[in-house]
Amino acid sequence: MDKWNSIPFRGYVVQGSNGEYAYMTSEERIELVSKVKAMMPNDKLLLAGSGCESTRATVEMSKSMAAAGADACLVVTPCFYKSGMTDDAMFSHFTAVADNSPVPIILYSVPANTGLDMSAEAIIKLSSHPNIAGLKDSGGDISKLSYVVHKTKDNGFQVLAGSASFLLAAYHMGCVGGVCALANVLGKECCDLEALYKAGEYDKARDLQYRLIAPNMDVTRKFGVAGLKQAMEWLGYIGGPTRSPLIKLKPDQTAVIEKDFKENGFL
Amino acid sequence: MDKWNSIPFRGYVVQGSNGEYAYMTSEERIELVSKVKAMMPNDKLLLAGSGCESTRATVEMSKSMAAAGADACLVVTPCFYKSGMTDDAMFSHFTAVADNSPVPIILYSVPANTGLDMSAEAIIKLSSHPNIAGLKDSGGDISKLSYVVHKTKDNGFQVLAGSASFLLAAYHMGCVGGVCALANVLGKECCDLEALYKAGEYDKARDLQYRLIAPNMDVTRKFGVAGLKQAMEWLGYIGGPTRSPLIKLKPDQTAVIEKDFKENGFL
Amino acid sequence: MDKWNSIPFRGYVVQGSNGEYAYMTSEERIELVSKVKAMMPNDKLLLAGSGCESTRATVEMSKSMAAAGADACLVVTPCFYKSGMTDDAMFSHFTAVADNSPVPIILYSVPANTGLDMSAEAIIKLSSHPNIAGLKDSGGDISKLSYVVHKTKDNGFQVLAGSASFLLAAYHMGCVGGVCALANVLGKECCDLEALYKAGEYDKARDLQYRLIAPNMDVTRKFGVAGLKQAMEWLGYIGGPTRSPLIKLKPDQTAVIEKDFKENGFL
Amino acid sequence: MDKWNSIPFRGYVVQGSNGEYAYMTSEERIELVSKVKAMMPNDKLLLAGSGCESTRATVEMSKSMAAAGADACLVVTPCFYKSGMTDDAMFSHFTAVADNSPVPIILYSVPANTGLDMSAEAIIKLSSHPNIAGLKDSGGDISKLSYVVHKTKDNGFQVLAGSASFLLAAYHMGCVGGVCALANVLGKECCDLEALYKAGEYDKARDLQYRLIAPNMDVTRKFGVAGLKQAMEWLGYIGGPTRSPLIKLKPDQTAVIEKDFKENGFL
Repeated sequence: MDKWNSIPFRGYVVQGSNGEYAYMTSEERIELVSKVKAMMPNDKLLLAGSGCESTRATVEMSKSMAAAGADACLVVTPCFYKSGMTDDAMFSHFTAVADNSPVPIILYSVPANTGLDMSAEAIIKLSSHPNIAGLKDSGGDISKLSYVVHKTKDNGFQVLAGSASFLLAAYHMGCVGGVCALANVLGKECCDLEALYKAGEYDKARDLQYRLIAPNMDVTRKFGVAGLKQAMEWLGYIGGPTRSPLIKLKPDQTAVIEKDFKENGFL
Repeated sequence: MDKWNSIPFRGYVVQGSNGEYAYMTSEERIELVSKVKAMMPNDKLLLAGSGCESTRATVEMSKSMAAAGADACLVVTPCFYKSGMTDDAMFSHFTAVADNSPVPIILYSVPANTGLDMSAEAIIKLSSHPNIAGLKDSGGDISKLSYVVHKTKDNGFQVLAGSASFLLAAYHMGCVGGVCALANVLGKECCDLEALYKAGEYDKARDLQYRLIAPNMDVTRKFGVAGLKQAMEWLGYIGGPTRSPLIKLKPDQTAVIEKDFKENGFL
Repeated sequence: MDKWNSIPFRGYVVQGSNGEYAYMTSEERIELVSKVKAMMPNDKLLLAGSGCESTRATVEMSKSMAAAGADACLVVTPCFYKSGMTDDAMFSHFTAVADNSPVPIILYSVPANTGLDMSAEAIIKLSSHPNIAGLKDSGGDISKLSYVVHKTKDNGFQVLAGSASFLLAAYHMGCVGGVCALANVLGKECCDLEALYKAGEYDKARDLQYRLIAPNMDVTRKFGVAGLKQAMEWLGYIGGPTRSPLIKLKPDQTAVIEKDFKENGFL
Repeated sequence: MDKWNSIPFRGYVVQGSNGEYAYMTSEERIELVSKVKAMMPNDKLLLAGSGCESTRATVEMSKSMAAAGADACLVVTPCFYKSGMTDDAMFSHFTAVADNSPVPIILYSVPANTGLDMSAEAIIKLSSHPNIAGLKDSGGDISKLSYVVHKTKDNGFQVLAGSASFLLAAYHMGCVGGVCALANVLGKECCDLEALYKAGEYDKARDLQYRLIAPNMDVTRKFGVAGLKQAMEWLGYIGGPTRSPLIKLKPDQTAVIEKDFKENGFL
């Protein structure tokens, strides 16, 4: 945390997908948010993942997260009964959560994990709710992100890129920031990318973006949490083991990650 | 329960997919199993769904379910980090659960909900574990079921059809039974199908199987839990409302179910 | 052809998926049918694959195939504009082809190649056309096959299993036969399976079915045309090279096929 | 053609996906390219779609297209035997086509039609071939496009956005242009977007991009060729009927397109 606190992040997300929240008890989830809150400066925002499969549990978890210090809650789409997760079901669920959460909520769509891609239509309809502040979209469909920005910008709705692979494209299309797994290991570089974009240094931003893609793919799509934790160990953080059923990397997988980080100048 | 107790089921599964276990607290899940145990005759088996995303929680839940009276546990594949749920991860997970469960476990693959189809290879490899008794497979791939039966029959491994739509085909290919959502409403008919098969009345069994497909599709793939609960109300059981985020059926959806049950002589 | 002629097949399909028709010119396709016709006995049926992407070309090819001696045409679903291939489009296409074909047509759904699974509803609606004789379905969804048999049996519609992996299950559920890639190499065994089924020797049929699954998977899903051609060489037929862009098997792939054929007693 | 000739396009693509080439005979395909060549100014480039399923046919068609006046050929991925279309198969196919084509070829990946997404690895490996000039990618994965640009830019490889929905993002990430269905109806606007981007007018470019997304979705993903042809009629071009098996729009579909074009100021 000390190391992360020195990076100009706008805030932290505790229990996005890579936080292994699916493998924690409710008590662990809340405790972790409390601990991060205690170790972070007051001028950063704390977002807590409060999504559960049921609406009731999600409401309760959102209340607990707010009590533990969260400034806002990141609420992933429920996904167990996939064919039942229609736009109508999504609308009802997120409306109920937003109605009952003491802090603003942020919609979260992460199809690689959930097998569900929240539709632009459902997002746009929900964007007018006063307690729904924005969206984290990890699907990587820049056309969808652009369309959502276009249709919600009059609501003050904030769209966030959910992965570092398309962060610069997202800024160019009107997103206001990103929530990126890669920021766990290359946080400064993610902030640099934003700074370059905001300074109009587009060529430099693009060159940096290029270098982030392969490392990011390694710690997300290709090797997931185990890849991210390995990279954390290399970069001076504490990754630690994954929780079961996730398993350790094989040596050839570790070698791929090492090569991609080295080739791009990050190791 | 009284009504179900009068049907010649071999036993009950509490918290298969349609039991909405994903929307219950751990306490509710265990309590429900205890209550069913108290209301059922001793000569029937009680299988309890004990699957959770983490290995640790699944082990704990399996112990709790055994303590609550379960004769065996049905353990669904974890599915959140889809790309991490490799055959190796599956093998480690189910081995750990089986090693630590006081009662036998049954592997459970239900791709319509989890987005993951457990591979035949992983199933066959796990079938030799002394505390893994069988498989419930709801995917409906009869070639896979046949292959698994073929490769595991020397282990005493029991393969169960996970849906009433392919129950007769599964019997013909060597499966020993079924765990079927449809049995909540047409339990006698499911038992009749088995009886006809075992009596060698194949033509009658086939005619009955034909009539079960459309009603079964309605209460599973097409309209899910809400469809099943509606049918329960019609057939003299207590369906009740779905838990949110699942939503109510629309009138035209109810009409489809009613039509299919009527056309096939079940209403 | 001499070797195949000695097997009690009901007939031949020339240019099913494994016939590499997608890589032939129209002239080659027609010539091949003529040549097979000239080398086969009169009491067997000749089915020719006449499917093309456009309705017009499919009609023309069906006429050419009939002129070349085909008794019926196997017409695969068009698939290029996937999102446009709605039930309505399918209905119009196959109706137009059936209206204009001088010989009966057989619907053909092979999602592994086309990426499209023709819906049961579209098939059932088309089954009442007087010039549509049946269906070859290679998808392997036994519930769908059963449902289609149930809903079309009063039309004299003939449903054929499209793969040897689920051939016995298909017979049990009312299909009248199969069109199986595996029959190119294990034709006698496929005919034996039918004979055992028809003689009521269900246990023997099942044991044979079990042994056919792994070899069949090798020459279809796993290694495709190249696998089938390799097996043909081993079994005394002429496989020859695949056409490009299909490529040769790698040695470890060949080894898998050899192992599966040997383990099941076919090599 | 007169109307299109007045728009500052760099050139034309004849027989991209929306050209219905899958429904044409070889003769029609070549004739169409000849006719366009005769009606276009010499300072524009003519790209012709020459992709076929077989390598041999693709080579022949590329030669014919060059003879008909094409400056380069757009070669779509073959896709019939999907499981056989590995990176190795793709590499062999495109290498053979490029070796034998008298004009440069452009790789073309359009997963919505083919069901296949050509891998970044295969593209990068092919980019060093001296007769492979670039890529049209319609998949819309901006991370993949960025990665390909990054890894191929030293080869002079040209990456083109395959759809107008992500055209601006593609420019920002280093793509050199686009081949867009929407340019058939809003060609001037597509050129305006490029001009605004090149002039550094990023806010104006973004506003224009926003307005193009819904109309573009209507004439591609949502309603396909039929939608595009309808819009052509409205915008002063000749759309004409689709070829069968594609079917006509329904009135409510036409109404959606009309609404989206009107709301964004294009009708």
